[in-house]
Amino acid sequence: MEKEGRPVLGDYIIVKAEENGVTIIGLTRGQNTKFHHTEKLDRGEVMLAQFTEHTSAIKIRGKAKIFTKHGNLESGE
Amino acid sequence: MEKEGRPVLGDYIIVKAEENGVTIIGLTRGQNTKFHHTEKLDRGEVMLAQFTEHTSAIKIRGKAKIFTKHGNLESGE
Amino acid sequence: MEKEGRPVLGDYIIVKAEENGVTIIGLTRGQNTKFHHTEKLDRGEVMLAQFTEHTSAIKIRGKAKIFTKHGNLESGE
Amino acid sequence: MEKEGRPVLGDYIIVKAEENGVTIIGLTRGQNTKFHHTEKLDRGEVMLAQFTEHTSAIKIRGKAKIFTKHGNLESGE
Amino acid sequence: MEKEGRPVLGDYIIVKAEENGVTIIGLTRGQNTKFHHTEKLDRGEVMLAQFTEHTSAIKIRGKAKIFTKHGNLESGE
Amino acid sequence: MEKEGRPVLGDYIIVKAEENGVTIIGLTRGQNTKFHHTEKLDRGEVMLAQFTEHTSAIKIRGKAKIFTKHGNLESGE
Amino acid sequence: MEKEGRPVLGDYIIVKAEENGVTIIGLTRGQNTKFHHTEKLDRGEVMLAQFTEHTSAIKIRGKAKIFTKHGNLESGE
Amino acid sequence: MEKEGRPVLGDYIIVKAEENGVTIIGLTRGQNTKFHHTEKLDRGEVMLAQFTEHTSAIKIRGKAKIFTKHGNLESGE
Amino acid sequence: MEKEGRPVLGDYIIVKAEENGVTIIGLTRGQNTKFHHTEKLDRGEVMLAQFTEHTSAIKIRGKAKIFTKHGNLESGE
Amino acid sequence: MEKEGRPVLGDYIIVKAEENGVTIIGLTRGQNTKFHHTEKLDRGEVMLAQFTEHTSAIKIRGKAKIFTKHGNLESGE
Amino acid sequence: MEKEGRPVLGDYIIVKAEENGVTIIGLTRGQNTKFHHTEKLDRGEVMLAQFTEHTSAIKIRGKAKIFTKHGNLESGE
Amino acid sequence: MEKEGRPVLGDYIIVKAEENGVTIIGLTRGQNTKFHHTEKLDRGEVMLAQFTEHTSAIKIRGKAKIFTKHGNLESGE
Repeated sequence: MEKEGRPVLGDYIIVKAEENGVTIIGLTRGQNTKFHHTEKLDRGEVMLAQFTEHTSAIKIRGKAKIFTKHGNLESGE
Repeated sequence: MEKEGRPVLGDYIIVKAEENGVTIIGLTRGQNTKFHHTEKLDRGEVMLAQFTEHTSAIKIRGKAKIFTKHGNLESGE
Repeated sequence: MEKEGRPVLGDYIIVKAEENGVTIIGLTRGQNTKFHHTEKLDRGEVMLAQFTEHTSAIKIRGKAKIFTKHGNLESGE
Repeated sequence: MEKEGRPVLGDYIIVKAEENGVTIIGLTRGQNTKFHHTEKLDRGEVMLAQFTEHTSAIKIRGKAKIFTKHGNLESGE
Repeated sequence: MEKEGRPVLGDYIIVKAEENGVTIIGLTRGQNTKFHHTEKLDRGEVMLAQFTEHTSAIKIRGKAKIFTKHGNLESGE
Repeated sequence: MEKEGRPVLGDYIIVKAEENGVTIIGLTRGQNTKFHHTEKLDRGEVMLAQFTEHTSAIKIRGKAKIFTKHGNLESGE
Repeated sequence: MEKEGRPVLGDYIIVKAEENGVTIIGLTRGQNTKFHHTEKLDRGEVMLAQFTEHTSAIKIRGKAKIFTKHGNLESGE
Repeated sequence: MEKEGRPVLGDYIIVKAEENGVTIIGLTRGQNTKFHHTEKLDRGEVMLAQFTEHTSAIKIRGKAKIFTKHGNLESGE
Repeated sequence: MEKEGRPVLGDYIIVKAEENGVTIIGLTRGQNTKFHHTEKLDRGEVMLAQFTEHTSAIKIRGKAKIFTKHGNLESGE
Repeated sequence: MEKEGRPVLGDYIIVKAEENGVTIIGLTRGQNTKFHHTEKLDRGEVMLAQFTEHTSAIKIRGKAKIFTKHGNLESGE
Repeated sequence: MEKEGRPVLGDYIIVKAEENGVTIIGLTRGQNTKFHHTEKLDRGEVMLAQFTEHTSAIKIRGKAKIFTKHGNLESGE
Repeated sequence: MEKEGRPVLGDYIIVKAEENGVTIIGLTRGQNTKFHHTEKLDRGEVMLAQFTEHTSAIKIRGKAKIFTKHGNLESGE
């Protein structure tokens, strides 16, 4: 149960799609780094995603605005 | 019981619908990332939602204002 | 008992009703996200509500001022 | 005993009644959200109230000034 | 003994009576919220009072200056 | 022994007597709030007093300057 | 399970590819420092990557913008 | 041994005597508040004293400068 | 497993090579301080490296920009 | 061993002698407050001294500059 | 293993050699303070070194720039 | 082993010798305060030294610049 309590405090990022078909890919934590989830966003949709016990890297394809603790940036340009 | 105490401290976001039919979708934490809850907001309604032991990602569709620790943004444009 | 001590430190929001019939709805934490409590406010009434071990999301309907750690906003417009 | 030590650190709010008959209502923490205490204030009286292991929401009726960590506001207008 | 160590860190408020007969009332923590102590101050007297394992709310009657972490205010006007 | 280590970190206040006979009264922590110690200060004397496992409230009579974390004030005027 | 909870709080960096074929290489934590994962980014793609229990160093080849807690910089120039 | 480690972190005050015969009196922590140590300072001497597991109050007589976390003040005037 | 969780929080530095053949050398933590890993960077390449349970010192040869919590500097000049 | 680890984090003061024969006296922590160490400084010498598990008060005689977390002062004038 | 996790969080310093033959000497923690490691830097080389469970003091000879949490300084002048 | 992990986090000071023969003396922590180590610095040499489980006081003789968390000073003048 301890496992479930702590990840709640992990940081999250925000992605706003600026075009259809923006892809957000979660990569696995652990010895192998593989794609474990792919989420498609259409223009205007927003996704907020935490780093979790299963996701230690996130890849973003397509034109989007990204909001993070290190500042904001744009992908796909 | 420990499990119940800590998530109370998780961060939350605020969504204010700017049109009818704004959708807030909770995606599951854990090995599979699936939709586990969908909430519909009509224009003017406000939702405050925490990251929880069951929700590690949130997707927002439709025109809305979003308030977060990384700043404010607008979806659906 | 540990369960009871920590939630006391959870964040809270403040809602001030700007018209009669403002509704504040608590949604359940856990695997199912359901309405578990509905509170009606008349114009001028103020409600302060914590995120708790039973409430991980709050929905607000009607014209109100909302005060949070991410800033202030207005619902119902 | 642990239960008793931590709630001492909970946040509190301050309510100053601006008219007779201001009502401060404590709502129960837990699965059911019910009124568990009602305190009446006359004009000029001040109440300081913590969130506790029994109170996770507070409702205020009547004209009052409210001082909180999210800023100050007025009820009853 | 743990119970005794933590409350020492609880926040306190300061009340300075601006007239004779200012009343500071401690209300009980726990399932019942009752008056458990009443302290009378004459003009010019100062009281510093912590939130404790027995006091989770404080009521002040009469003209006084109150100093708190949320700012200063005056009762009895 | 744990009991002895933590109170060392409790906050303290400073009282400087501005006239003879300033009285600093320690009130007991616990179910009964009673006077447990009274200290008399003459003009110019300074007392620094912590909140302790036995003192959760302090009452000051007579003209004095009081230095606290919520600012400075004067009693006895 | 403890192992899974803490890495969620590790810091992350952000890499935005400014040309095709930017390479992000994860190097192993532990007694041997070896390449354990290589991710290719095309122009405009963004990668967010945490330091994890398997990655204690990251190497970046090609023209990219890098966002970190120590500031932003550009590789490949 | 735990008892010995924590008090090291307690706050301390600084007293600089501005005349001969300045008296710094340590008062006991615990159910009885008694003088347990008296230190005399001559003009120009400086004393730095922590709140400890045996000292929860300090009384200063005579003309001195006192440096504390709540600011500086002068006794004996 | 505890061993794996904490190092994730260690600080890291960033090195950007300003010429070919910049060398980053990890020196071992422990009773003997020896080279345990050498990484070569070509002009424009960036390396982010944490202090780990095996690396307590890092040596940099060649012209590079170094970004750290104590500020930025340049090697090789 | 726990006893040894924590005192390392205790605060320290700095004394710079402005004349020969400046005396720094360590007073014992515990039920009896006695001199346990005396250090003599000649003009220009500097001493840095922590509060420790054996020292809870420090007395300084003679002309010196004292650097502390509450600011700087001069003894012996 | 606990031993390995914490030192990762120790502070580090940065030394940039301004001439050939700058010497960085690690001195042992513990009852005896002895040289345990000597590192030579040539002009332009940079060394980042943590305080570790084996190094509690560092000596620097020769002309170098030193970057620390207490500011920057130059040796060898 | 716990003993070894924590001292790594102790504060350190920096001494830069401004003349030959500057002496840095470590004094023992514990019931007896004795010299346990003496380090000689020649002009231009720099020493960084932590407070450790064996050193709770440091004495500096000769002309030097000293960098600390309470500011910078010069010995030997």
